Formats: sequence, structure tokens, C-alpha cells
Amino acid sequence: VAEISPKSGERLIVKTDAVVEGRHYLASDPADLVARKLLRVNLSDLAGKGARPLGYVVAACFPDSVSEAWIAAFAAGLAQDQKVFGLPLLGGDTTATPGLASFAVTVFGSVRGRIPRRADARIGDDIWVSGYLGDGALGLLASKGALGGLSPDALAYLVDRYRLPRPRLDFGRRVLAHARASMDISDGLIADLQHICDASRVGATIEAAALPLSGAASEVLADDPDLLPTVMGGGDDYEVLFTAAPAKAAKIAAAARAVRVPATKIGRIHQGREVVVLDRGGRKVELGQRGYRHF
Amino acid sequence: VAEISPKSGERLIVKTDAVVEGRHYLASDPADLVARKLLRVNLSDLAGKGARPLGYVVAACFPDSVSEAWIAAFAAGLAQDQKVFGLPLLGGDTTATPGLASFAVTVFGSVRGRIPRRADARIGDDIWVSGYLGDGALGLLASKGALGGLSPDALAYLVDRYRLPRPRLDFGRRVLAHARASMDISDGLIADLQHICDASRVGATIEAAALPLSGAASEVLADDPDLLPTVMGGGDDYEVLFTAAPAKAAKIAAAARAVRVPATKIGRIHQGREVVVLDRGGRKVELGQRGYRHF
Repeated sequence: VAEISPKSGERLIVKTDAVVEGRHYLASDPADLVARKLLRVNLSDLAGKGARPLGYVVAACFPDSVSEAWIAAFAAGLAQDQKVFGLPLLGGDTTATPGLASFAVTVFGSVRGRIPRRADARIGDDIWVSGYLGDGALGLLASKGALGGLSPDALAYLVDRYRLPRPRLDFGRRVLAHARASMDISDGLIADLQHICDASRVGATIEAAALPLSGAASEVLADDPDLLPTVMGGGDDYEVLFTAAPAKAAKIAAAARAVRVPATKIGRIHQGREVVVLDRGGRKVELGQRGYRHF
Repeated sequence: VAEISPKSGERLIVKTDAVVEGRHYLASDPADLVARKLLRVNLSDLAGKGARPLGYVVAACFPDSVSEAWIAAFAAGLAQDQKVFGLPLLGGDTTATPGLASFAVTVFGSVRGRIPRRADARIGDDIWVSGYLGDGALGLLASKGALGGLSPDALAYLVDRYRLPRPRLDFGRRVLAHARASMDISDGLIADLQHICDASRVGATIEAAALPLSGAASEVLADDPDLLPTVMGGGDDYEVLFTAAPAKAAKIAAAARAVRVPATKIGRIHQGREVVVLDRGGRKVELGQRGYRHF
């Protein structure tokens, strides 16, 4: 049993997530990266609400057959990111399982002022994202050897982005003061924007040409434009997706510059319920792969 | 992402616990009871700190082969105990696993005033427990058919106590205002009292004759006195174990009467580090089985 103490005037939020061997990661993946991604995926949820991390608890189920070395590397990964993010371990439970490994992390954050909800988008809002889209989904393909003809640097960049998300905590805390609806992108841009549209009872249009792409992702898309749906629907982005009144654009841009993470306006909220993507010529892009993908 | 809102002036505590198929329960156990025990085990931790339940989050990993009926019964069990304990579900994550089922619950509680710690025992304190000891451990034996010659009523009572713990929430909130050290008993009386002694840097002596036993447990022990170590070390009690200044005895008894749960003085804190059990004649009882047992 542990105590959690948000500062006075701050509101406490909580998020829980499970990862499972053979579903979210492979037993052959480096244990320290499995641990760090587990924390970062949850931290990304806090980033999407503009929260400051307060701490976490973890329930770890290790297979009877796990090696001491694997557990040690897993613990070292947790310890490393505890330091990186100033995220104390508040408690936990460790148990052996006759099955596969599974881990559940519950992370706590505090928010000063308003907590931006999915349901807060309004007609006329701009749609924004932090950072770059698609690196995680393309990194998964790259790590499986499914992306040919990529430069070694681009390959390494994408695989790293897949394995080790960068939760946009500073971005969330600085930029979301100017936002209406907000959440982090984990299931893919289209699926998560649809979540916002469903909750806010609005529709959305995205300009494909406006999507922010890393150099590596641009290289991949130039080679194979058919991967655009993967960029928009593949998931594992862990960027912040938010809407804001058009009058806030300058403040958003300034706040994003201050934390040195790009903020890009990618579309507009309007009446309806649907998420539509338009190409450079104003034609609807077919979205084969929408959201939520596990291997 | 969910918000947790303790009342002003209250302190927030958190506890997380994992249960795993094949280790903490069997796939053949009723799914609703698996779910209810999962919640109750965590609520017992809150009871041991005198906390009021605020809500919980759950991360559930269901095997690919699980039936819809099992999941429905599991969810119904959660819903039932949400009502019983006024415990809202604040969030969760559900995932499929190629392995066995596992569940992690993180429960939140609020405490008004001081949170009693394991490290708060002082030399001269009385040692108290709520309710009855050993019913859970004997219930596990009974459910395996390992207890012969028991009346059907006693058998049913013990199996039920093993399957469905009664977290002593009212007791904790009313009685622990008068306590020093406190925790709930999950690993067994001896192991958990040793935790208090280690944290408080004290020793403890228990009078075996003073241990509160249910009618069913008395029946079992009369038949086989060698089961005393199981009663003291078997675990699954989910009672409150606490120490208090002797001057508080009358207030403790009155508070316990008010919530209609027995409070029993079973021993004394003294110098040293060890936990000793004395029989009626003042001889040391050998403790074969100490704490922590899973099947």
C-alpha cells in the first residue's frame, strides 16, 4: 500500500495498460526495452492529457521458466526510465505464472486546471498533432524486414521509434492549455480521431499532404505510396492529437517551439460523424487499414 | 484515462495485485468468484489501512481460447462486488493472450488522518486481530477434499471463506483510529506479524490459546491439532492485524462491537525481532509452515 500525493490544486488522473508476451512483444525482444516501452506507452496517455507524471505501480507475471538475467534486464529498464521521467515506483506485485509473461502498469499524473477530454472538440476547430506520424508502424514493418531498399540510418531510426516511444510530456503540459479535445495516438491517427469525433459528435477532415512525416517515413512513402494507410492507421505513434480554436494557432505554435517538438495543423472539425482524408487533389483517400493492430 | 477525486482533507492510497490462472486460481473455478476474490483481496489491503474504497482499475488478459460465457461471468462478478462495496470501475485494459489468463487490479482508497504503517509498532503494544484466523487456509484444504470427518455445514463455511474473503473495511475505518501498526493478513498471521516486527524493529509473542477461531476451525483443530501451523501460517485470512497501546483496549472493543466484527487481543510486542508462539503451558510452538503459500 502506497500513498499518492498530488500538489494542492492539482487533479489526479490514472491510466492502466497490460502488455503480454507473444502479443505486444516477443520473448526475444530485449527485456529492458519491453519494460521501457511499457512505461512510455502509459506516459503517453498522460502526455495526451497535459499531465505531469507522479508515479506508477506495476503487476508483473513472470513465467516459471524466465531467467534471472531477463528479470534483471527488465528491472534495469524500469529503473532507467524511472530516472528519465522522474517517475517513482510506488508499489507492485510480482508473481510467477505457469503461462506467458504479462505486465500491467498503472500510472498516475497530475493536471493543473482543466483536463482536456475526447468529447471537447467543436465544429470549426483545427486538428493538430505533435511530432511525426507513422514512424512506429513503419518501424514495426522495418523490424520484421518488410521494408526493402531503406537506408541503414532510416531503418535504424524507424526501428528505434517502434521500440522506444517518446511520450510528449513537455509538449502536452505546455501546448494543451490552448487545446479543446485531446488524447494520445496509440491506435493510429484515424482510429483515435474517430474516438474524438464519436465522443464529441462531430466529423473531421484530414489533408494527407499536411501529415508531418520524419525523413525516414518520407523516404519509405516515396518508395511505396501504398503505405500511407499504414502511416495513418498503423498505430504506435504515441504523439498528441488535439483540436483547438483557430484563434489559438499562434499560441500553440509558440508553445510547441518552446519545447522543440513540431506541432502541425492537419485538418478541421466539422459537422457529421465521419473521419475523411483528402489527397492533394481533394479526392477521398481509401483507408484500408483503420487503427488498432497487434502482431 | 480517468480522474480520481478524494475528498478534501483525505489522503489517497493505492494497492496493486495480480492473479494468475493455474497459480492463484484454477480454470475450473467459477469465473464470478475469481473476479470477486480479486477485488476483495485488494479491498482487504485498504481495510488494513483504515481506508474507504474510492474505485479501481483492472487490466485483464484473457486467453484466446476463453469462452464468452466465462468473460460474462467474470464481468458479472466484478459488477456484483462493485455494488456491494460501492467501488466504481475507473478504467481498464482488456487484451487477448496466447497464454493463460491473468488479471491485475489497482484499487484506490482514501484515509482521513493518519495512515497506520507496518513500522509503527512499539514495545508494550498489544497485538490484535479482527474476525477469525485460519478459515481461508482450512477452506483451501477442505476444497481439495483434504479435511476428513467435517460436518457439511463446517465444510461449506470454510470453502466459502476461502473462495470469498470478507474485507474488513468497516472494522478498519472504525477501529484503526486507535491502532499503531496495522496491515491486513494475506500471507498468514506469523509471516505478516513478522513483517510488522521487521519494519518496527521489535519482537512479538502470540498466545496460541487466544487465537480467535470460527466454530468450523475449532472443529477441525479438535480433530487434528497438528493443523495449528496451517491456521497461523496458511494465509488467505484477509483479517486486520494491528498493534495498539494497552490503554486503547476499551475503545478498540467498543469500536469493534459497533461494526459487529470480533476484535481479539492475541499477544504482545516486546524487544527483539522474532515472532514466538506459546501454547497454553507457556511452551514454544514449532512453526513448521510459515506464511506465503500458493497452489
